[in-house]
This record gives sequence, structure tokens and C-alpha cells, in this order.
Amino acid sequence: MTDFFPLRELTFQLHEVHGLGEVLKLPRYAMHDRDTCDAILDAAHMLALEEFLPHAAISDAQEPHFDGTKVHLPKEVKPAIDAFLAGGFLKAAFDEEVGGLQLPQMVYSSMAALFTAANIGTMGYLFLTVAAANLLRAHGNEAQQKKYLLPMLEGRFFGTMCLSEPQAGSSLADIKTKAVPRADGRFDITGNKMWISGGEHDLSENIVQLVLAKIEGAPAGVKGISLFIVPKRTVNDDGSLGGKNGIRLIGLNHKMGYRGTTNTALAFGDGEACIGELIGEPHKGLSYMFHMMNEARIAVGAGAAALAMAGYRYALGYTQQRPQGRALSNKDPSSPPVNISEHPDVRRMLLAQKSYVEGALSLCLYCARLVDEEISNPDASVKTESHALLDLLTPIAKAWPSEWCLEANKLAIQCLGGYGYTRDYPVERLYRDNRLNPIHEGTNGIQGLDLLGRKVLGDGGKALKLLFVRMDATIAAAQGDAVLGEYATALKTAMGRIQTATLKLGGTAAQGQMDLAMANSSAYLELFGHTVIAWQWLTQALIAQAALPTASHSDQGFYKGKLSACRYFYRYELPKTATHADLLLQMDDTLLTVDVASL
Amino acid sequence: MTDFFPLRELTFQLHEVHGLGEVLKLPRYAMHDRDTCDAILDAAHMLALEEFLPHAAISDAQEPHFDGTKVHLPKEVKPAIDAFLAGGFLKAAFDEEVGGLQLPQMVYSSMAALFTAANIGTMGYLFLTVAAANLLRAHGNEAQQKKYLLPMLEGRFFGTMCLSEPQAGSSLADIKTKAVPRADGRFDITGNKMWISGGEHDLSENIVQLVLAKIEGAPAGVKGISLFIVPKRTVNDDGSLGGKNGIRLIGLNHKMGYRGTTNTALAFGDGEACIGELIGEPHKGLSYMFHMMNEARIAVGAGAAALAMAGYRYALGYTQQRPQGRALSNKDPSSPPVNISEHPDVRRMLLAQKSYVEGALSLCLYCARLVDEEISNPDASVKTESHALLDLLTPIAKAWPSEWCLEANKLAIQCLGGYGYTRDYPVERLYRDNRLNPIHEGTNGIQGLDLLGRKVLGDGGKALKLLFVRMDATIAAAQGDAVLGEYATALKTAMGRIQTATLKLGGTAAQGQMDLAMANSSAYLELFGHTVIAWQWLTQALIAQAALPTASHSDQGFYKGKLSACRYFYRYELPKTATHADLLLQMDDTLLTVDVASL
Repeated sequence: MTDFFPLRELTFQLHEVHGLGEVLKLPRYAMHDRDTCDAILDAAHMLALEEFLPHAAISDAQEPHFDGTKVHLPKEVKPAIDAFLAGGFLKAAFDEEVGGLQLPQMVYSSMAALFTAANIGTMGYLFLTVAAANLLRAHGNEAQQKKYLLPMLEGRFFGTMCLSEPQAGSSLADIKTKAVPRADGRFDITGNKMWISGGEHDLSENIVQLVLAKIEGAPAGVKGISLFIVPKRTVNDDGSLGGKNGIRLIGLNHKMGYRGTTNTALAFGDGEACIGELIGEPHKGLSYMFHMMNEARIAVGAGAAALAMAGYRYALGYTQQRPQGRALSNKDPSSPPVNISEHPDVRRMLLAQKSYVEGALSLCLYCARLVDEEISNPDASVKTESHALLDLLTPIAKAWPSEWCLEANKLAIQCLGGYGYTRDYPVERLYRDNRLNPIHEGTNGIQGLDLLGRKVLGDGGKALKLLFVRMDATIAAAQGDAVLGEYATALKTAMGRIQTATLKLGGTAAQGQMDLAMANSSAYLELFGHTVIAWQWLTQALIAQAALPTASHSDQGFYKGKLSACRYFYRYELPKTATHADLLLQMDDTLLTVDVASL
Repeated sequence: MTDFFPLRELTFQLHEVHGLGEVLKLPRYAMHDRDTCDAILDAAHMLALEEFLPHAAISDAQEPHFDGTKVHLPKEVKPAIDAFLAGGFLKAAFDEEVGGLQLPQMVYSSMAALFTAANIGTMGYLFLTVAAANLLRAHGNEAQQKKYLLPMLEGRFFGTMCLSEPQAGSSLADIKTKAVPRADGRFDITGNKMWISGGEHDLSENIVQLVLAKIEGAPAGVKGISLFIVPKRTVNDDGSLGGKNGIRLIGLNHKMGYRGTTNTALAFGDGEACIGELIGEPHKGLSYMFHMMNEARIAVGAGAAALAMAGYRYALGYTQQRPQGRALSNKDPSSPPVNISEHPDVRRMLLAQKSYVEGALSLCLYCARLVDEEISNPDASVKTESHALLDLLTPIAKAWPSEWCLEANKLAIQCLGGYGYTRDYPVERLYRDNRLNPIHEGTNGIQGLDLLGRKVLGDGGKALKLLFVRMDATIAAAQGDAVLGEYATALKTAMGRIQTATLKLGGTAAQGQMDLAMANSSAYLELFGHTVIAWQWLTQALIAQAALPTASHSDQGFYKGKLSACRYFYRYELPKTATHADLLLQMDDTLLTVDVASL
């Protein structure tokens, strides 16, 4: 069987493309070297293959169920999680000070992608715990870190993020969960939360729910939101577990994918006391949450790429082994059939998948590097620039992979034909799983608004300029090359389209027509996304081209594959940016003027 | 709740756009008038709503299971089917001579779309029976029609189509099922068939399997394929049921959608005698099957449109009733939220769905009219022209809806956000159902080869010219109109792109590079498809625009919606044809030259 996620891809991306070596020279990571990083990825790959992949279909078919008292999970989940914890993967990126391995984000993201590709259902619990722990590390006080963070990093407590409510999904301004101060400095929490992944299970001693709520008398809207630690069981000051806190499982949501991760509706303080601790200052909850949300959004993108990688690799192996049909020019029906990977249209689907998956992965690891630089580079100007670029790229790193890697999963099904459509093969499950990614952690529509409104127009195009400087450097390196020069020119053209569209949109907004400018933000996101991925492909192609002459035989194949996927992306995908740019320059008002009642 | 499929859409398409009135003047349909047709659609809509829609989710969740002896279906299926049969829907389009109602194909297709939108799982059994009955009507001899066709039209026997085998899905040349002549003129059938929908159930007294097999000594490839009637139970000459025939259910396939229809792997003649009757002449089986396959392909397209209609209508109702968020320009968080249909990006998704769904439906009903003209017009030249146009448009009517209406179902989920991703709402099921349509009855890749190779280059562009004459007439009617003139010009441009691309592809093929020309047939299909749908939209818009001034209040809304969707398609969708045309003019050889082993 084809490897579900070849490590060669990760070593290429980390070491050859995104300069993990330079990151490892930063003081924060001085205790690690390439060997450590490769070893942890090796171990992750093996564990993902042996303990996560085998029960992915089981967790999908036997999704968690609630018998009214307890939530039941397939028996394979707990041992896999235990092995993950024992391997130290959960605390890989955390500070040594709190018991972490202090590995770069780039390594953590790569490792997480392996587990996601193998089994997102089981990995979900771990992702959420890491995200909640990250938040506590950044914003919890010392006592909170001791009481909650340390047991989370030991794997004794798991975590969740409780944002949405039944009446307020994307619109957090309208959440109703209330926090009433108690005499002891803590708060009584009441309200309902919706879509809470990992909100109930027996995988850990405790669940640390991080809950957005409004303190009585807080300002309306998002400026009145505070963040609370609301544990499933209270924790005494000495770290021992207290009684049950007033969180009730209303029920499990039954999704079309991600079925291995419990997804819950929770009632807080419904008839029993539910006590929470404030994190940081009152009314700043959303900014704390968003600090982590940016990383969560990049993780969504990387997760989408990982799910598509698993689908692509399966389809690749299948099409290379399944004989059917003959070349169109072969009129002899008694000749043996060829493998379906020989048919041009199947090749189109394979190249499309590869270009989406590995392009998306490259962008996400580029962002991971920016995170590392932002956190760890001693040079303040590098920190600032990394932060600005990361802010700009985050909506793209979330939305582009979740859109196009879903498309990749669709194509993986198509490569398998009728078999792909059955539950005996993994590709339909991966497609169902990936359908969530354009929705959660901010819908792709919201990413478009964020990109155009906040990240480009909102900062006067400063971050955009920084990005263009980096893209220009890549173009300069490729210009004049017999093969890559064509792509460099095309990339420059696409950048010009972004520039022209941005000026037009900015001018429209400046003339008081902000609603009109923003109405086509999804087209802007598409234009921008395809251009950024094209840049990532040119970066990869430059390295592949340079490495080819002296590469080993197997690496020659690897690099040729990179060049083929890059060529595919430039010939078949990047030209789509022309259509988006044309639309934006027309400043079309169809979406504003349509009478919805007539639809 | 929003109507799952408004009849107004069908009366518009049938009477105002596609001229059902003219079809009803043909001698074959002289016994019917508009009232009859509207009444049958009314009845179909009510039955679909009351007996089909309510158990669609049940059939999905409780898919058919095989206990080793018997296949079990949800109890709601049989009463719905009985009501369908009692209503005469199954025999709607068949000749009066065999007990049918002899209604136009246009009416049958519209009615079928209603039932599909409500519940494709239950409708599947009926579709297959109609298709098999059609084939027997066209190619069965008198005795076969009496023994098998009449009981099918009475609903006592159901039918199937058995083409694929485990080792041969798309490549029918490689089927292995054998037919050995018996002394009594019948044949012993042995072999395995795969993906047989409706291959086993207890809904009918008998199942008439129509099986492709090769008679011993037949030529290799598709020229050696014959077609056989292989009933589940043999039928005596007096019509009474004989014993069990040697067909064994190997197992049920478990699909990601279409779960209400049993999908089977069948063994013929495995250890017990399995007797079949030859249909027509030996070795002509594939041509008989393909006679029906063309109608089946258009039915796939119409089905895809129907599934997307149900999703679109649900999303429309949901977004018009779900308050969340505020206009970007509204900075007051204490103001009440607006319905999400007010957000421009949600409108984009609604307009996209509408433009895909109603554009696809229009093309499919246009094709249905061509079928009616081909079958029933006394004028031989009309017959010939209708046949040629139908041949040309069939791959588009199959592929375009199945690609873009799946996209519509994807957008319906997005409109509902997290709720859309759960199984409590129908949109994720419809998305899963629709994922089959790009695969079955010839993958969309095969449709691209068919369009470019057989339907355009293969007939020297003659049918294409006929199509362009009709498109030019629509353009002429719209030119000069203040609103529609813009679209007429854009459509003419897109037609020019088809023309240029066709010349380039034809020239390449003529120079001996057929493989290169065909390698980009999917791009050609996309270019062609978007242009044809744009034409359908201009046709609809012309009628809506003309009707608007004198329309009733509710019809004014309806027509305005049509004009909005048309505008959306021309502004957001049709420009994509430029990208496809550019690619085709480059005669790109990426797909031919890529080294698949390097991927």
C-alpha cells in the first residue's frame, strides 16, 4: 500500500524549503538539531500508522454515543491516545519550563499533520488540549497554570474551546452565557454552548473547558466578552480533584465527518452550580481567544492538507495498480489493459490533488516558520515582520487549503470510481471529514472579510508590501531559468492582479462604499490564495530544480514530481486569477442589489 | 418550511421556456393538454412531499441490510412505492399500447425530478424499472414484452441494468460474464456483476435483470457483447412465475449516499443454473444498452439538479429565517441581528446555487424536449436535427449538472454553517447523494472524451453548427436589450472560444496527435458546459424580462429572481470559459508527459 504520508515530503518542506535549520539556530531551540526533529517525525509517522490509522474507519462507523449517563467511544481510541501522550507529542512545542520539549512550531505542525492524515477523529481530542493549553500558557496566571496547564501537559486533563452558542455561531457578539461574580473571586457560569468538540468523554481525569461568557453589566457586543476556565470537575488548590462542576451534556451532535471526536451541546449552571475562574482581565476574552484562534486557523488549513494528503496518496496507489481500459489510440481490445494512472484525465486528477495538497502544506509550514520567528527570534524587526506576515496570511492558510483540499478529496473519490464512493475505501470518509474545514474556526466567508477588511485595507497594505518583497525575491531567483522563468512571469502577473484589485477595492472603500468593496471579498480571497500558493510552488520548484542534477535516483523521482505539480499549478490553476481580478475590477454589485425575497 | 421544489419553476421551464405547448400538439400527445400535465405534476409534488420526503433521512440512516438470507428495507419504502405505482407515474411516458399514459418525456422528467429531490433512495428502484422497461420496449421481442415489460409497467416486476463487473467498471470491453447457448434457445449465464442498484429486494414479485454478457466465441472487446434478460424468478410462457433463477446476492455495497437504494454484487450461475434470454441480435448488446444509456445520462443530470434543488431550497429558507450578525457598516452591537441571507457572501452562495440548479434543470428539460421531438415529430428533418443535438448535448447534460450541482450542495451546507454539517439537517445527505452523479453512467472524464472525440470531432462539427444556430437565435433576440445585451455579447464571445478551441483541437488530432488533443477533453467539457448553461440562462432571462411588465405580484418576484440568477451566472461564472479556452489553445501536454511514477 502507498505510504499515507511520506516523510520525504516533510523533510523536503522543513529542511529544503522552509529552512528549519535556521530556526534551530535560534536560542530557544538550541538544544535540538535536525536529527532530533527527524527522529520525532519518524516516531510520529510510525505511531500514526500503527495506532491511529487502523481505527480511523472504526471511529467513523461507530461514532461516540451517549447512553444518557455516559459517552462511549470505540475501545481503540484510548490506547492510541495513551501512546501519543507517552511519546511526548502533546507537549512537543511547549516550554521546557512547563515540562515541554520546546520544539519548533514547524516540527509540531508537521507531526500533527501526520496524525491528522491518519485519524482526525482521535487526533481531535489532542488538538483541542494543545490549543487550550497554549491559551493557558499565554494568558493564565501562575496558579491557573499550575492547577490546569501542568495536568494538561501530562495528559491527565484534556481541554476544549467553548465559543459558539445555539443562537450564535459566527456572531460571537451575540453570545448569552453569563458570568456572575461570587464572593470567593470566582464566577457562577450559566448558559448553553454548541459545537463543543471533546466536550465530554472519559479519556482524561478532567476536562478544562475554556468558556466565553459575559460578566453581568459588561458592554454589548464583543467588547463585553470574558474568558473563563470551567473544569468538568473542580480542582482544589493542592491540585487534587474536587466534585463535579455544573456542566451537563445536553447531547451529542451527529456530524457527517469528524465522527470520532465527540461534538457536544453543553449546559452550564443549569440547575446546579457551575463555577469558573476568570482568565486575565474582564472583557478581554475575545482577544485572548483570538491569540490562539490564529494558530487554530492555520491548524485547520494544515489539517485540511493532511486529510487531502491521505486521500491523494490512496488514490495514487490505487490508480497505479488498477488496470482498466486502454490508450485511446489502441484499438486492440485483446491487448492487456493499462493502469488507470495512464489515462490523461486520471493524471489530471492526480496532479491537481498533488498541487493542492503540497501547495497548501507548504503555505502552512511557511506560516509555522513565521510563528517560530515571531515567538523566538531575538531580533525585534524579524519578530514584527513575521507577525505582520502571519496576520496577513492566516485567513489564506485557513481558507485556501480547506477549499481546495476538499476539492482534492473529491478528486480522490473520482480516481477510484464506484469504489471511491463506498465506505470500504477511505477516500469518501476523508472527503466527509474535510467538509468541516471550510466552516469551523471562522467560515471561509469570514476569512475573506478578514483578509480584505482587516489584513489588507485595515493596515493600509503594509503587510501586503512585505509579502510582495518576499515573492519578488522568489521571482528574481527564477527569472531567466529556461523552465521556471515562465512561472516567474506568471506569478508577477498574478501579483499585479492583486495590486490592481486592492487599489480598486481600497478606492471604493475610501469613497464610502465599504459594503460594496467587501461584497466581493471571497473573490479577493480566491485571487490572493491562488497567487500565494503559486508562490509556494515556485519556491518548491526552485529547490527541486537545483537539487535534481546531484540527487539520488529516488530523489530524482521526488524532485521531478515536484516540478510536474508546479507546472500543473501554473498551467491549470494560476490562470484562474485573471477571472477573479476581472470581477473585482468591475466592482460588481450583484450581491448587494439582489432582492433575496425573489430567489 | 420552504417548498423543496416549487412547481412554479417547472411550469416556467415547461410552458414558458421549453414550449411544452408545441410538443402537446404533436400527434403522439394529442390526447393531453396543459391541464393534464399540470395535474400530474401537482399530484407528483404532493405525493413526493407526503410519502417520499418524510422517509428520506430514515432510508439514509437505516440503509438496507442483508441478513444472509433476505434484504431488509425501512418499512416506509413500500407504501411510497405503492402510491407511486397507483398514481400511474411509472408508466407515464410509455405508449398507450402497452398501458402507458403516453405523456411527453418533458413531463416525465419533471415529475421524476420532483421525486428525486424528495428521496432519491426510494426513487432509485423506480428509475431503474423505467429504464429497463424502456429498453425492453425498444428492443425486446413481442413475447418478451408480454412476459416482462407488461408486468413491469404494472409494477409487479422491477428492473435493473447489469453492466459493470468487479474488474471492469468503465471498461465494458473487458467484461467476463459468459453466455452459453442451451438447446431451448435460451442461454446459461455465468459471471459476477458489480454496482447493481436494485439488484435485490422484496419490493416486487420479480426482478428483471438486464445483463451484458459475451456469448462463447464472440469477438473481443465491446463488439462481442450481447444483452440478456435474466429474471430473479423464471417466468413461464403463460406469465406465471416459475422457480428461482440462479442469481445469488454476494453482498450489498455500502455507499456514502444513495443509501436507500440497495446496491449489490451479484453472482450469476454460481453453482446453480442461471438462465437468460437474448435480447435482439447477438453482439449488439452494447448498442441496445447505449440507446438507453443516453436517456440515463440525461436522467443523471436531471437527478443532480433535483438533489441540488432540494439543498438550495432548504438553504434559502434557512438563511431567510436565521438571524445572525449585522451589516459591516453597522457598529452597534445592541441592534438586532439580521437574517444571514442579508450578508453578501451568503447571497453569493444562494445565487450560485440557483444559477447552477435552474441552469442545469433548464438544459435537462431542453434535452427532454429534444427526446420528444426525436420520438414524436412527424417531420423527419426535425427528428434528425433533434437526434444530432441530443447526441451532442448528452455528455454535457450528464456532466455539467453532476459537477456543478454537487458544488451547489456544498454551498447549501456552507449556508447552514455547523448545522449544515450535521445529520439533523438534510443538506449534508443531499451532498453525499450527489457525489455519485459524477461517477455513475459514465464518469465525467468519459463524458469529456465522448463530447470532444465522438460528438464534435467525430461528426466533423455538424451538430455543433446546429447548436450554434440555435444559440445565435437567442443572442439575436437579446441583442440591443439594455440589460440582456451585455449577456448576449458575452455568450457570443464564449461561443467564439468554443469555436477556436475546437479548430485547434481538431487540427491537432488531424496532425496525428489525437492523444494530445484528447488529453484536455475535460477542459473542453467545462468550456462547453458553462457556455451551454449561459445560453439556457439567457433564454430564461429573455422570457422573464418579457413577462415582467404584466406579471402578477408573486410572478414579478419569480421573474426578478430569474434575472438575478442570470446576471450572477454571466458576471461570476461565464468568464471562467476564458481560462479553459486559453489552456486549450496552448495544447498543453502536461498530462501526457508527466512521469506518474514520480508523483
